[in-house]
Amino acid sequence: MSESKRGRPRDMEVDRRVLDIAAAQLVERGYAGLSIDAVAEAAGVAKTTLYRRWPSKDHLAVAVTARMQEADPVADTGDIRVDLVNYLTHIVAAINRSRSLGLVAELAAAAARHDDIGELIHGVFTRRNALVLALIERAKQRGELRADTDAVVLFDQLAGALYYRVLFTGMPIDPAYAERLVTAALDGAVPTGEMS
Amino acid sequence: MSESKRGRPRDMEVDRRVLDIAAAQLVERGYAGLSIDAVAEAAGVAKTTLYRRWPSKDHLAVAVTARMQEADPVADTGDIRVDLVNYLTHIVAAINRSRSLGLVAELAAAAARHDDIGELIHGVFTRRNALVLALIERAKQRGELRADTDAVVLFDQLAGALYYRVLFTGMPIDPAYAERLVTAALDGAVPTGEMS
Repeated sequence: MSESKRGRPRDMEVDRRVLDIAAAQLVERGYAGLSIDAVAEAAGVAKTTLYRRWPSKDHLAVAVTARMQEADPVADTGDIRVDLVNYLTHIVAAINRSRSLGLVAELAAAAARHDDIGELIHGVFTRRNALVLALIERAKQRGELRADTDAVVLFDQLAGALYYRVLFTGMPIDPAYAERLVTAALDGAVPTGEMS
Repeated sequence: MSESKRGRPRDMEVDRRVLDIAAAQLVERGYAGLSIDAVAEAAGVAKTTLYRRWPSKDHLAVAVTARMQEADPVADTGDIRVDLVNYLTHIVAAINRSRSLGLVAELAAAAARHDDIGELIHGVFTRRNALVLALIERAKQRGELRADTDAVVLFDQLAGALYYRVLFTGMPIDPAYAERLVTAALDGAVPTGEMS
């Protein structure tokens, strides 16, 4: 209750500015080059203010990632193939952006190292997942997808394939791959009429 | 050509012993606690020998991972659903083993940080993928899977979903999840007869 109502808009503005600068430094210098002190200096904000808001570099990087994901629009055109390809294409573009793969990988490592960072990162990804799960549920309701479709597993397959490829097999991802992926996940692989 | 033929069997034995000890130390102390010096001491091998073979801790961890993956059997029973569930269940068990998630996450970060480590890790995962891709191709040949099945995308979805869940959303994986995943990927999500 120490936070006054009048103070909030200004705080959000400072947050936005700090996160813009942190995002720019991540692109320019990579995760290893990100520093709370340097961000504070560039933003003209006291270091203590930043450390109070984001106790470590990992916390700041999670906040940058959350804001990047919020910028990816989830559009419902009524055609689930189109909507999923569009959404995955946004993720592809974000991963392919300079240094972003390093950020994602470092966050995965930080999540495994520190439970508190893990919780924050899982929260960010779970919130993103929820938007797409709602999209899939609506497609089930209008009969575009089968009623027994496991929405969670479907999105795990889609998002998972993108990250697995770039993080572990080192293969590229692009919009064409996003399209192959959606086709494969929706159409399955068994001959027609031979579902289990 | 400096390596004599007589020397090789003994070298392989030393490799095996060193990798056993490194794997045990990874389980016990985690990635942060792994140290080439400590492994050399426990193995009774000169540090220089280890550094010649694995120039950094990352290199040693990649070698441990490669050997762990080789231990996962790829069995071809003639039933692709059974074979894929079995294989994914081995990956699930490996990921759920104490500290293994941390190892996987740190390797992903190391791959993004250093190009040479990236190449090694991509090689390890690409070799593993090849075994499963061959399994999928045989299922296509015997008509169990459609001839137009994109084997690479199918395995990206399967393996990717496992890693995405545990690394990013923090949700658990178990044999039941592996089964849901194989069913979803093979059966797809569109109503029968409405493939694109």
